[in-house]
Amino acid sequence: MRELAATVDEIPAFILDMDGVLYIGEAPIEGAAEAVEWLRERGKKLVFSTNNSTNTRGAYVRKLARMDIRARESEMVTSAYATALYLRRHSPRAKIYVIGERGLKLELKWAGIGLVSYDRADEATHVVVGMDRTVDNKKLTGGLRAILAGAEFIATNADATYPTETGLSPGAGAMVGALVGCSGRSPKVVIGKPSPRMIKIALGALGSKPGETAIVGDRLDTDMMAGKRAGLTTILVLSGVSKKRDVVKFRKKVVPDFVIESLRNLMVS
Amino acid sequence: MRELAATVDEIPAFILDMDGVLYIGEAPIEGAAEAVEWLRERGKKLVFSTNNSTNTRGAYVRKLARMDIRARESEMVTSAYATALYLRRHSPRAKIYVIGERGLKLELKWAGIGLVSYDRADEATHVVVGMDRTVDNKKLTGGLRAILAGAEFIATNADATYPTETGLSPGAGAMVGALVGCSGRSPKVVIGKPSPRMIKIALGALGSKPGETAIVGDRLDTDMMAGKRAGLTTILVLSGVSKKRDVVKFRKKVVPDFVIESLRNLMVS
Repeated sequence: MRELAATVDEIPAFILDMDGVLYIGEAPIEGAAEAVEWLRERGKKLVFSTNNSTNTRGAYVRKLARMDIRARESEMVTSAYATALYLRRHSPRAKIYVIGERGLKLELKWAGIGLVSYDRADEATHVVVGMDRTVDNKKLTGGLRAILAGAEFIATNADATYPTETGLSPGAGAMVGALVGCSGRSPKVVIGKPSPRMIKIALGALGSKPGETAIVGDRLDTDMMAGKRAGLTTILVLSGVSKKRDVVKFRKKVVPDFVIESLRNLMVS
Repeated sequence: MRELAATVDEIPAFILDMDGVLYIGEAPIEGAAEAVEWLRERGKKLVFSTNNSTNTRGAYVRKLARMDIRARESEMVTSAYATALYLRRHSPRAKIYVIGERGLKLELKWAGIGLVSYDRADEATHVVVGMDRTVDNKKLTGGLRAILAGAEFIATNADATYPTETGLSPGAGAMVGALVGCSGRSPKVVIGKPSPRMIKIALGALGSKPGETAIVGDRLDTDMMAGKRAGLTTILVLSGVSKKRDVVKFRKKVVPDFVIESLRNLMVS
């Protein structure tokens, strides 16, 4: 662990994935709040990141506050926020048809992006698809018709599932798959991890370079993959989705620089 | 047209696709009722077929009756009915979790197949997926969990879209895509056209062999493909989805034996 201690000591900026690192659902992971405070005391710059597109950044600040984790909205990078920034930069006059929840719509609105409703779906320049627990046939129909009328297909992320108290539930990948299945098109852009776009936005928020930054996450297939692709130091925690056996299974695709039980194990120096 | 006349004269059995051949939505196609009557007068054996899984066979008999087309339930082969027969034959003790509408559930029940609801989704031996205009997150969650618990994934059909009065709407392909997107699995079996399973069941209902049977349909990618694969005489009508230009586009995949404007053009002898 001397090597981890040296790395943590040297690296000034950390991207902390939230789900599986700080909490699972509404349950905080033991020692996570202390570890975040420990990083802050050492003057580390932090960004909190999630592929989940259903909540606003403010909602995550409040969620972390309930777990005694201090965070500012400017430290939050969600796939909804990253999608809004992407669109503001590449298509400031976009008109978006959204399949997604309220948090996604709010982040788009706050970025000054125009939204169109079902009745005007054929005027949409883009269809943005995220996880949507209120998805129905009408929403899908609007997305299908917008894409057939020429709108660009963008996914906030493509996570297949997410863990809930009662078991795995369909993630954004289900909504993306539904649109692929009826439109015959694939998303032109996927914003969330493992795409490097989220990482770029996180680096922008941190004001740091890849070589000065570590990503701490619980998923080999998103967090660790995205981190490696972007040239970050990668630290896998085993408190979430990926387990020790997965590290072996995944070793041809990505090998994290460090594997630790949970975030508290960062406090080694 | 002498060749078509001779073929129609010789062939004793016809599979007539319904949507786009006999009607579009609720609107009958001109001359279709007369053509069916004309075939009956000549002693032809008929089966009416559709990939649509949302209605019972009885509902289709009544729909055709409203358009002055006589048909018996025993002449109806829908993907819902074909799925029920497939399961009764291969897995008589199956317990099915259904993502689909009432017609599909009734056909399964009438075939003596057991259904399980959301609360017992993890006991399902199969997940059967068809078009479902009442799809929601809960239904998808049940399907996902059943598949992850080991249930076999079966699709009634994989039609991407279907035409409605207001434009194209998501077909069974959307529901299939949603489950593929969250479970990471593809259907083990697809029952509807272009799979030969529907054709086999239609031939069984007709009591006829492929060489003695013609299929009349409006889609190159389902009806004509299925017919060719099964060794039937294939007759494309241009009154539905596929147009003349599609015949050229599709010529490397399938060339129908005959192309006619609409069903009425069968009445040539």
